[in-house]
Amino acid sequence: MTGVLAGLRVVESAAFVAAPSAGMTLAQLGADVIRIDPLAGGLDAHRWPVTKDGKSLYWVGLNKGKRSIRIDIAKPEGRELAMALIAAPGENAGLCLTNFPATGWLDFAGLKRRRHDLVMVSIVGDSMGRTALDYTVNAAAGFTFVTGPTDVAGPVNNVVPAWDLVTGQSAALGLIAAERHRRLTGEGQLVRIALADVAFATAGALGYIADVEINDAHRPHYGNDVFGAYGRDFATKDGRRLMVVAITRGQWEALKKATGLSEKFDLAARALDLDFTREGDRYEGRAAITAILERWFAARGFTEAAAALESAGVCWGPYQTFQQMVREDPRVSPANPIFQRIAQPGIGRYLAAGNPLDFGAAPRGAVLRAPVLGEHTDEVLLGVLKLSERELGALHDKGLVAGAVASDRTA
Amino acid sequence: MTGVLAGLRVVESAAFVAAPSAGMTLAQLGADVIRIDPLAGGLDAHRWPVTKDGKSLYWVGLNKGKRSIRIDIAKPEGRELAMALIAAPGENAGLCLTNFPATGWLDFAGLKRRRHDLVMVSIVGDSMGRTALDYTVNAAAGFTFVTGPTDVAGPVNNVVPAWDLVTGQSAALGLIAAERHRRLTGEGQLVRIALADVAFATAGALGYIADVEINDAHRPHYGNDVFGAYGRDFATKDGRRLMVVAITRGQWEALKKATGLSEKFDLAARALDLDFTREGDRYEGRAAITAILERWFAARGFTEAAAALESAGVCWGPYQTFQQMVREDPRVSPANPIFQRIAQPGIGRYLAAGNPLDFGAAPRGAVLRAPVLGEHTDEVLLGVLKLSERELGALHDKGLVAGAVASDRTA
Repeated sequence: MTGVLAGLRVVESAAFVAAPSAGMTLAQLGADVIRIDPLAGGLDAHRWPVTKDGKSLYWVGLNKGKRSIRIDIAKPEGRELAMALIAAPGENAGLCLTNFPATGWLDFAGLKRRRHDLVMVSIVGDSMGRTALDYTVNAAAGFTFVTGPTDVAGPVNNVVPAWDLVTGQSAALGLIAAERHRRLTGEGQLVRIALADVAFATAGALGYIADVEINDAHRPHYGNDVFGAYGRDFATKDGRRLMVVAITRGQWEALKKATGLSEKFDLAARALDLDFTREGDRYEGRAAITAILERWFAARGFTEAAAALESAGVCWGPYQTFQQMVREDPRVSPANPIFQRIAQPGIGRYLAAGNPLDFGAAPRGAVLRAPVLGEHTDEVLLGVLKLSERELGALHDKGLVAGAVASDRTA
Repeated sequence: MTGVLAGLRVVESAAFVAAPSAGMTLAQLGADVIRIDPLAGGLDAHRWPVTKDGKSLYWVGLNKGKRSIRIDIAKPEGRELAMALIAAPGENAGLCLTNFPATGWLDFAGLKRRRHDLVMVSIVGDSMGRTALDYTVNAAAGFTFVTGPTDVAGPVNNVVPAWDLVTGQSAALGLIAAERHRRLTGEGQLVRIALADVAFATAGALGYIADVEINDAHRPHYGNDVFGAYGRDFATKDGRRLMVVAITRGQWEALKKATGLSEKFDLAARALDLDFTREGDRYEGRAAITAILERWFAARGFTEAAAALESAGVCWGPYQTFQQMVREDPRVSPANPIFQRIAQPGIGRYLAAGNPLDFGAAPRGAVLRAPVLGEHTDEVLLGVLKLSERELGALHDKGLVAGAVASDRTA
């Protein structure tokens, strides 16, 4: 392994997005991340999207660069193995990441008795101890009632699992911050983070809690408008769409320059007693700005509009479906150093990304594929737990561990 | 300062969400984060939501726990001061965070000549060197065409600035990982991360790139349905809404138990030749499942439905507007240890969150308010740059630095 975290060893017992994405981040930065799964695979083993054969593209997407071990954790001897793995010796080991209840074999106090300086990051649902998923957290955090078309009465769900993704990066940060603390003091610790707290704290950070408490605000659905400044989507003559943003004064000046509509904006501002050099006034007058811009975009093809925006330095971007993103955007291709085409057994070759973080002192290695479930069972038991071949054989004979299923290895 | 990162000193020159949220995260974990702003405030100084007096609730939300210094960086002597601050000595200093172009006074090579082991985290727009905002990145990343009502033809924008938020946490992780590397090797480095790469890499991690390349999939708007399993929103008799999720087999069994609708689901599955114990089959048959459940929820008030779901252990949550979240949810109140009511000069008292990460070895301190712009100018120049009172006076006389404006200090 290369990478800025090379040498660290993390044991992950997890499913879905938050904790697995934390583990993948650490793996892509060079840590040896060992994911423990039950013999039949975890709760997320078959999560959609899947191939026509039912192989999960989601699972291989979120577990790139990890090692995989299958253990029958339904049996006490299996749980014993898992605990031994988490508490295995090594200055750079004793790091654990989970989103399962921190009880039973994942109980921190019990694990700490096996390794006094254990660092464990536990992702939980909410601060009251309830389970939660991104979907339920997002529903509670206010955003669904401001997302989506202005003529929709009810809530609009997020498709981007934002709270999972943010929590994943926070959890990875928490683990490395705790490892730093251990390096300085010798002390391990339990680090906890609740998915719901991430959403609520973020709503606060963006001003939405104070907006209720200080302003008593009731915000409607925003549609595709940028809140509090100017920005929205436009259709071009040839049916493409693009997003145009003018939050800062500089962005607004660029938009005026690109479109040559400065005089019309001035007239509209005077008609509305607004000053469009102010971001809040652009928001108040957004319908008028939009009406003026819509005609400009509708009279131009995408290429012509894009060139005009580009040459004036407007902040804008094309809308793309997943198909367009994959097939047409050079930033989603091997021309971008984070992307490489990898071969995933059972699935085939496809474009996959390494970590977006680029460390000057630790050059990017190859983008690593996901393991096949159980691919590293023997290697981990021999190399990390230092079992003998004979002990390993006995575990297999008892059905406590298993390697990769042959059919899973087939590309 | 207390906190797991106590002792670290980070200089931030940034605006909007990604970099400021990274800095706030580090500050809330105990680091001394000094935000440099131009005399009149940064590009985000007036970002909405604002109070009736135009004070930004967004700015104070994203800068909690930092120190603020105002420097006239339009002048060479001002830029000299800023560079000196970034490169100031100290084993735990020499850490810098920005989302501005890393040129001029923020050029890494130039700063590195002042401090050879500098760590700098630079957030950029995209891999091709273009500027980008969360809005333009989200438009390009495919999600807008699967978000929102199934009968909407065009894209639906995210309101949650997911890519900014994820990038912020990744940037904080990148800084701490690079500081760890420096501690082990003595070597500093430039760490770069592009907002667009975070979105594209995430689309890949969730399987959407492979879904195009392997499956040639064209996904429609999801509405409020969970993709690939079962989950959606329901209205109760008294007009409340709740989100119900059954991704895992266990969650599906709990939903059947809570509603007593097992036999009806079996009939529907047989009618459709599906097996609802499989998550993909629940997705294929979601319209039938929804039709059965809708009547169950419509016949019950929120309290009755919630009690039934709760007692069976269903994964569910209420939809809440920002108003309901702030006024009715006990998890968004001082009953939750991450929240405290703080007093923000110029704005008043409101509920604010500390960092969602809870470190067992570093108990939570008070939730810190945001600085008033320029509040720590003198303190930083005297304490960090070790200027004399006379030198400080000269900087003020020349208009190169400024403290807080008196009217900003008023609560």
